[in-house]
Amino acid sequence: MELTGKNLIGNELSATGTNRFQAKNPSDNTQLPVEFSEAESGEVDAAVRKARSAFSAFSTAGVEARADFLEAIGDEILALGDELIARCHLETALPEGRLNGERMRTVNQLKLFASLIREGSWVNARIDTGDSTREPLPKPDVRQMQKPLGPVGIFGASNFPLAFSVAGGDTASALAILQAANKTGMPDGVFSMIHGHSEPGRLLVMHEEICAIGFTGSFQGGKALFNLANNRRVPIPVYAEMGSSNPVFLLPGALKERSDSIAKGLAASVCLGAGQFCTNPGLLVSQKDNDDFTRKLASALEEQQPGTMLGDSIRENYESLSRGMASKTGVTQQTSMAESNVIANLFTTEASDFLADKTLEEEVFGPSTLMVSAGNKEELLKLAASLGGHLTATIHGTAEELEEYADLIEILEGKAGRIIFNGYPTGVEVCHSMHHGGPYPATTAPQTTSVGTMAIYRFTKPVCYQDFPQSSLPVELRDANPRGILRLLNGEYTRS
Amino acid sequence: MELTGKNLIGNELSATGTNRFQAKNPSDNTQLPVEFSEAESGEVDAAVRKARSAFSAFSTAGVEARADFLEAIGDEILALGDELIARCHLETALPEGRLNGERMRTVNQLKLFASLIREGSWVNARIDTGDSTREPLPKPDVRQMQKPLGPVGIFGASNFPLAFSVAGGDTASALAILQAANKTGMPDGVFSMIHGHSEPGRLLVMHEEICAIGFTGSFQGGKALFNLANNRRVPIPVYAEMGSSNPVFLLPGALKERSDSIAKGLAASVCLGAGQFCTNPGLLVSQKDNDDFTRKLASALEEQQPGTMLGDSIRENYESLSRGMASKTGVTQQTSMAESNVIANLFTTEASDFLADKTLEEEVFGPSTLMVSAGNKEELLKLAASLGGHLTATIHGTAEELEEYADLIEILEGKAGRIIFNGYPTGVEVCHSMHHGGPYPATTAPQTTSVGTMAIYRFTKPVCYQDFPQSSLPVELRDANPRGILRLLNGEYTRS
Repeated sequence: MELTGKNLIGNELSATGTNRFQAKNPSDNTQLPVEFSEAESGEVDAAVRKARSAFSAFSTAGVEARADFLEAIGDEILALGDELIARCHLETALPEGRLNGERMRTVNQLKLFASLIREGSWVNARIDTGDSTREPLPKPDVRQMQKPLGPVGIFGASNFPLAFSVAGGDTASALAILQAANKTGMPDGVFSMIHGHSEPGRLLVMHEEICAIGFTGSFQGGKALFNLANNRRVPIPVYAEMGSSNPVFLLPGALKERSDSIAKGLAASVCLGAGQFCTNPGLLVSQKDNDDFTRKLASALEEQQPGTMLGDSIRENYESLSRGMASKTGVTQQTSMAESNVIANLFTTEASDFLADKTLEEEVFGPSTLMVSAGNKEELLKLAASLGGHLTATIHGTAEELEEYADLIEILEGKAGRIIFNGYPTGVEVCHSMHHGGPYPATTAPQTTSVGTMAIYRFTKPVCYQDFPQSSLPVELRDANPRGILRLLNGEYTRS
Repeated sequence: MELTGKNLIGNELSATGTNRFQAKNPSDNTQLPVEFSEAESGEVDAAVRKARSAFSAFSTAGVEARADFLEAIGDEILALGDELIARCHLETALPEGRLNGERMRTVNQLKLFASLIREGSWVNARIDTGDSTREPLPKPDVRQMQKPLGPVGIFGASNFPLAFSVAGGDTASALAILQAANKTGMPDGVFSMIHGHSEPGRLLVMHEEICAIGFTGSFQGGKALFNLANNRRVPIPVYAEMGSSNPVFLLPGALKERSDSIAKGLAASVCLGAGQFCTNPGLLVSQKDNDDFTRKLASALEEQQPGTMLGDSIRENYESLSRGMASKTGVTQQTSMAESNVIANLFTTEASDFLADKTLEEEVFGPSTLMVSAGNKEELLKLAASLGGHLTATIHGTAEELEEYADLIEILEGKAGRIIFNGYPTGVEVCHSMHHGGPYPATTAPQTTSVGTMAIYRFTKPVCYQDFPQSSLPVELRDANPRGILRLLNGEYTRS
């Protein structure tokens, strides 16, 4: 596993730009070997043009070939062995156990998508057969299915170096992807990786051949890309997953029954990965008489090990936001302030103060959480209704309370992509049913997900064929249905 | 059927603003009875707030109640009888036969959506059951389905007063909708209609309780709404169907075999509804040696009856764009210029001129078409690849040619929402398989359709439920599947 620091423009290594940067080990602040070359405009352009050239061959490659490619990527990532995990750990300070888990998730994700495209029903094939005798006008034969959008640009996320970045994470996985592409006969340009700070990103979003953007990161970053993309000559979708403070509603019955276990569970969830999860529970809402629970949660948080954050700027941001939170009107810090702030923080405030200051809802990226006390159910519902968009919302309650608070669920359906009962929002299961997304400002595309098989629809669009001869139709839309996929045929779902 | 000219704010008639306007009969330029009141900001706000209040009751009303409501709207529209058609004709100059057809389509559309929601599988229910014994982490129970977005604003389109406007068209249909809402017990505010020019529209798009916008009209109008919506504090999706010149590729074999019938078919399609269809074939592409066909098409167009356009501004726009087209470099007018330009126009040009002037691709709203001659197949493909987004693309060819031009189909899949073989783009079948949309600038939302049952997804979003007790899950996601809908259960499609 050799790192060159060069950009990968399809199969070519390239370092024609003049800017260089190095990764830093966040644990000891030392610079890590290999200078990375920031992509210059010619390299961004070359990568996108290669992708455009590869698009036709890749999108018309058989399903088996594409599924083999995905599985081969998984194999090649695994073949990198512990060297990959070691380098990821050096760059991110994430524990090796966590990175091993993330690698397995990444590989399983690739396998899941391979099986999804092999099974084939995802294309949403729909057929309405024609009727030339219909009056007053003949009925045409109309068929539709999902087809790929075109070349897309994806911005990696430092908190998930594997699962949310280079389909797996960094240069090593990128090389594994290229290796897999070559082994499975994929066209040059099917994958490129360019490094850099904001300028290569801007060039990528503005490139006329790019059809969509995926991004995971800060609100400022995602919103900037969204604005750029909407102001292109041809606007393109930006699937940006941004900040979220993931409200957790702690109903009285639950706190009465299980305050110890909820305090421990929440503390672990808040501190998981040094709090650097998009689903980190940064906002807790409970009703009055919660002092006992507050003390338990503060202790549980103080018992958590301090974590090392992903990098200087993220740590400095956390420290600054934490100081800011401590100084806000009506906010009390319940955890002791340590030398370094990269320990968990619990803040408390009243619903009235929360309702008066919208900034209290904003994400503090790191192991911090704010508990808001509502006077009664009515105020709790008012607070829920005031929320902006979040990736998740959680309710801890008894089964009876969940029925009693049906109006809370209804409100949260409008506020979050996923609602969790008696659990913790961290941990996003990769499956068909997962929706990892949510209303703005949690994402810029609330109707789509970044996790689970529904994510495939971010990069496809319907194409409709009218009165086409069988031989010119995509195989998924031919009468014979040779792949046996589920189709909507004249209004009935069938595999025949 | 009494027209009051007042805005309908739920069940209330309202005319608190000071601006008034009257409809004009485009056939004789006389003002039609009834002064309409332009909505002022308080009325827009009241309509949206009523919609927000009605949202909860409406979205949780049973499927049967909502389906009944849709069907009742159809019944009430039919119950208006010929008076509705007569008034539509007066306002639009569209022939009564066409309006009768459009009314039937509107009613069938309502029935289709009623049957869609009764059948229920559209909610895309997905269930992955949990496994508490899984290592290293227990697997949660995860379920998702589509839920409604919230109140939405729809801008009517003058060229389809019924099917694309007030779900049917004008004040009369609006009253029919309210009648149906009251008969089926729907909450006040489930439907409102406000009149006016640009300001009420701007207020509607900017209203914080509005969750999405539907629009059919000009590029300028749609783009303005798109920009407004993206610059809101909380951006919302704008489903704008805008201009399209709907390229038709006339391959040599087809012109050899059936030039007479293609000339007649195209002339009828160009002139249908005085050319005021979003799918009007405004751009034809053929290969050299097409002089004979050009003459036939010009004659066929000259034989068409002059139509009356929807209104002054639309007619003036058509005349001005036609004069502009005639004056462009390399463009020749093949039809004789009549006193009024509201007759069909055929222009011709060469591929090189077309490629040099992007404005030649723009829609001329009205009965006009531009035929571009390509020197050979290569130039024709180059021209196809240069196109922007369109609602439709059409290929006339022999079956052999369609195979020979497989690369043309592949290009067009990236350029148009619907590809038609040996037919005409006007006429959009309302069915499950229809995709009426296309890449920008044809629409601002290429992944969605405005016609057919897939249109329902414009106004819904996924919500995911994790570890919920059965009794708190939406009925579509409960184990028992009482509605028997098709669901993806642990990766398998099943109705059980």
